[in-house]
Amino acid sequence: MMTFQGSHILSVSQFDREAIAKILQISASMAPYAARQKRCHVLDGAILSNLFFEPSTRTRVSFGTAFNLLGGFVRETVGVENSSLSKGESLYDTAQVISGYSDVIAMRHPKMHSVAEFAQGSNVPVINGGDGANEHPTQALLDLFTIQSEMMHFGKGLDGLNIVLMGDLKHGRTVHSLSRLLSLYNDITITMVAPDALQMPDSVISILTDAGHKVILSDKMAGNLACDVIYQTRIQQERFASKDEAELYRGHFSLNREVYQKYCRENTVIMHPLPRDSRPEANELDTDLNDLQNLAIFRQAQNGVLVRMALFALTLGVEEQLTQYEKSVNWYTNK
Amino acid sequence: MMTFQGSHILSVSQFDREAIAKILQISASMAPYAARQKRCHVLDGAILSNLFFEPSTRTRVSFGTAFNLLGGFVRETVGVENSSLSKGESLYDTAQVISGYSDVIAMRHPKMHSVAEFAQGSNVPVINGGDGANEHPTQALLDLFTIQSEMMHFGKGLDGLNIVLMGDLKHGRTVHSLSRLLSLYNDITITMVAPDALQMPDSVISILTDAGHKVILSDKMAGNLACDVIYQTRIQQERFASKDEAELYRGHFSLNREVYQKYCRENTVIMHPLPRDSRPEANELDTDLNDLQNLAIFRQAQNGVLVRMALFALTLGVEEQLTQYEKSVNWYTNK
Amino acid sequence: MMTFQGSHILSVSQFDREAIAKILQISASMAPYAARQKRCHVLDGAILSNLFFEPSTRTRVSFGTAFNLLGGFVRETVGVENSSLSKGESLYDTAQVISGYSDVIAMRHPKMHSVAEFAQGSNVPVINGGDGANEHPTQALLDLFTIQSEMMHFGKGLDGLNIVLMGDLKHGRTVHSLSRLLSLYNDITITMVAPDALQMPDSVISILTDAGHKVILSDKMAGNLACDVIYQTRIQQERFASKDEAELYRGHFSLNREVYQKYCRENTVIMHPLPRDSRPEANELDTDLNDLQNLAIFRQAQNGVLVRMALFALTLGVEEQLTQYEKSVNWYTNK
Repeated sequence: MMTFQGSHILSVSQFDREAIAKILQISASMAPYAARQKRCHVLDGAILSNLFFEPSTRTRVSFGTAFNLLGGFVRETVGVENSSLSKGESLYDTAQVISGYSDVIAMRHPKMHSVAEFAQGSNVPVINGGDGANEHPTQALLDLFTIQSEMMHFGKGLDGLNIVLMGDLKHGRTVHSLSRLLSLYNDITITMVAPDALQMPDSVISILTDAGHKVILSDKMAGNLACDVIYQTRIQQERFASKDEAELYRGHFSLNREVYQKYCRENTVIMHPLPRDSRPEANELDTDLNDLQNLAIFRQAQNGVLVRMALFALTLGVEEQLTQYEKSVNWYTNK
Repeated sequence: MMTFQGSHILSVSQFDREAIAKILQISASMAPYAARQKRCHVLDGAILSNLFFEPSTRTRVSFGTAFNLLGGFVRETVGVENSSLSKGESLYDTAQVISGYSDVIAMRHPKMHSVAEFAQGSNVPVINGGDGANEHPTQALLDLFTIQSEMMHFGKGLDGLNIVLMGDLKHGRTVHSLSRLLSLYNDITITMVAPDALQMPDSVISILTDAGHKVILSDKMAGNLACDVIYQTRIQQERFASKDEAELYRGHFSLNREVYQKYCRENTVIMHPLPRDSRPEANELDTDLNDLQNLAIFRQAQNGVLVRMALFALTLGVEEQLTQYEKSVNWYTNK
Repeated sequence: MMTFQGSHILSVSQFDREAIAKILQISASMAPYAARQKRCHVLDGAILSNLFFEPSTRTRVSFGTAFNLLGGFVRETVGVENSSLSKGESLYDTAQVISGYSDVIAMRHPKMHSVAEFAQGSNVPVINGGDGANEHPTQALLDLFTIQSEMMHFGKGLDGLNIVLMGDLKHGRTVHSLSRLLSLYNDITITMVAPDALQMPDSVISILTDAGHKVILSDKMAGNLACDVIYQTRIQQERFASKDEAELYRGHFSLNREVYQKYCRENTVIMHPLPRDSRPEANELDTDLNDLQNLAIFRQAQNGVLVRMALFALTLGVEEQLTQYEKSVNWYTNK
């Protein structure tokens, strides 16, 4: 198995099934801290640099929260896109400097492979928080963790699952990385529901079929999607040449209560990477699903904190020390 | 009395006189920590999400400072107005996600009632840091706390006071909420000094008169304002159709040393919610008042930290544990 | 010697040689914490306000990191230039309020002498993080600390050094302040290499010559620069009337491996305040120097943390308590 301690987390491709199992196991062990049954100060005095070259409130706060939950300090580098880089500083130089300021770095950047380039200049572990169209590995890991924890309620594991991916599968790096992770398990059936122009790239499909999994392509919701999980992604308007073209697609690959009851099983778990567009005209995932127990989207977001805590603990080598640094929670909590 | 633990703080209307007394009492107990005579780590490991959908350095830093003074971590969500929300995310979804990241949330938003809407989706206490033209309850509470602590020097309480409110009373949510709070006390006389077009709304005046208080309306400083407190608010230029119209008002409802000595008592306490416009042409509260002992405006700003500490302690149910988590201060301080 | 405790750090001019020695000594004592051999929580519960009226990711994060490394909390006031100040608030008022929120303030502002003006209203120590064209004293101190620590390897101190300053010496406040500091030492030779229009101001040269040091002016790299240190500054494009004029200068006052080997000694230490422009057309300090052991630019950036830690410790009077608040580091580190 890979050594996590001191490693960069750049891509889901760097993990084998054993490494993933380790991440998921440590993530699960973080639940009591995130749920405020206990707190943990194993990283008291450690510093995370939250280095975001493009805005992403949710991901940034999730990384910061995860680090705080382990007792560490967070230094935010908001607006960095407007400062040094615009003066021609290389990613190598930025990495040399920022890694000198911190114990670990979470980084998001709009350019593909920029995080890996940055990591070459860093003296501390770098965790990829999204590098443009390339990867967003912590999202894929939290998605997998969510599937595992949701399936556990039904006595299932990660093998033998039937999963539907729906929406813009061409541009959604989330579903690309998740597909790659799922390919490590056994006997998966994946149905890809997307307009033809936004269907999953062949390169991703090959990874699944090469590993012996069953892939079904479809350009609409149809038949019986007797699936364990339906993973909805948004169709981002900025992917389209015009607003009109976006409207053509919009609404044809969305889920509401009626569609859910028509096509899915009673227990099908609904996932979505969030944010979801809740405006009436959007309908990517209707709010009439909100009171369904199987709507896992908010648990999924919470799981992001657990997975990020696990990655911090693993790369900083403190995953065996958690219980040693536990304290009880002395304030009111209702989580 | 209302239960604070686990409650949202959305409006001054949710408090009765007993609840207010509790807030003011706990606020006063925070003074030694803010003054650095001691420090307190009762919330060590807790996380505040400072969720600001519009910029407000002062209020944001005041909330964050208050949380730090109790030992907690602060996660800032600057620039959130440009991220998820612009993609159509509902306040409910944002609340579900952010409340999963934190133990308590301080929120500011430009839209009226948005904080209450958000609170419906939150699993942790939400404190309203200003929701557009609606309310800014922590400002009203710190104003009331300031009146109480300033009056204490003269052997007075919150009953029987004579208070002047001056400036733009129509749009100033600060003076609306303060009036509502003052109505809970006995035998208050309030003189409202404002240009006719910017006079206090009838709805607010009714609250005072219905509770049996004396309200005097005036369109200029005049006669003997033998008041305990004069509360100056700014006339915000953006309220006017043109800059010329603003100039007409500007300077007619302002306070300087000469005006103060002409109309006020020797001991009249001067308040202002800050920031104050100190440019020569502004004259809302002249800098020639700066060395008056009765100018309470900076003590008022400091009191904001105490009140916010109290609200965090009360909503998180740690107000009885403060002394148990005290430490001495080991660094230089001159506060 | 000056008393540091409770003092503002506004200008390098406020220090004599003894005070500098104290700062450099305390800075050196911070190295084990920054290198994660130990951690220190002497300022546990203290609050730094990082008050930046213009963006500077590097300086801001460096101050924040330094404070975290001593165990303290950091409150960031990003975007403050767009809030209160634009409403006419004076620096005095801002200082009164923000100093009430914090134990110490690091401030950057685009206007000359604004930090000193602000400090007059502050009840806590203010550290100048750059006030426009005026000063950036922590940069000068970290530069001096770097020279000292680099020279130590060669058995030299700060006296008797031969130093080259190169680039835009007219506008670079960095090299102005450094020259002022160097003037306190004995028997310095400084060669100023700059285009005539960007040569060091006479006022700075006088400080050096008045103190008996040798100053050589040159409009190009030439002869044998048998120097201990070559300090390269960037030629900022915004200083020029046109892009064409900038191009005329660009490349004539830059350092690469070939130039270095031609003009410098084998052991000459290369410094630069960073960020450096690493684009191919820039060539202010070529990346082909990156694997030279004598390229001190990244150590120099790290030293900024040490110097800022020292200034926090000194102004807050905890410099003698560091070892008393030490803990071991329990996470993985490879620094």
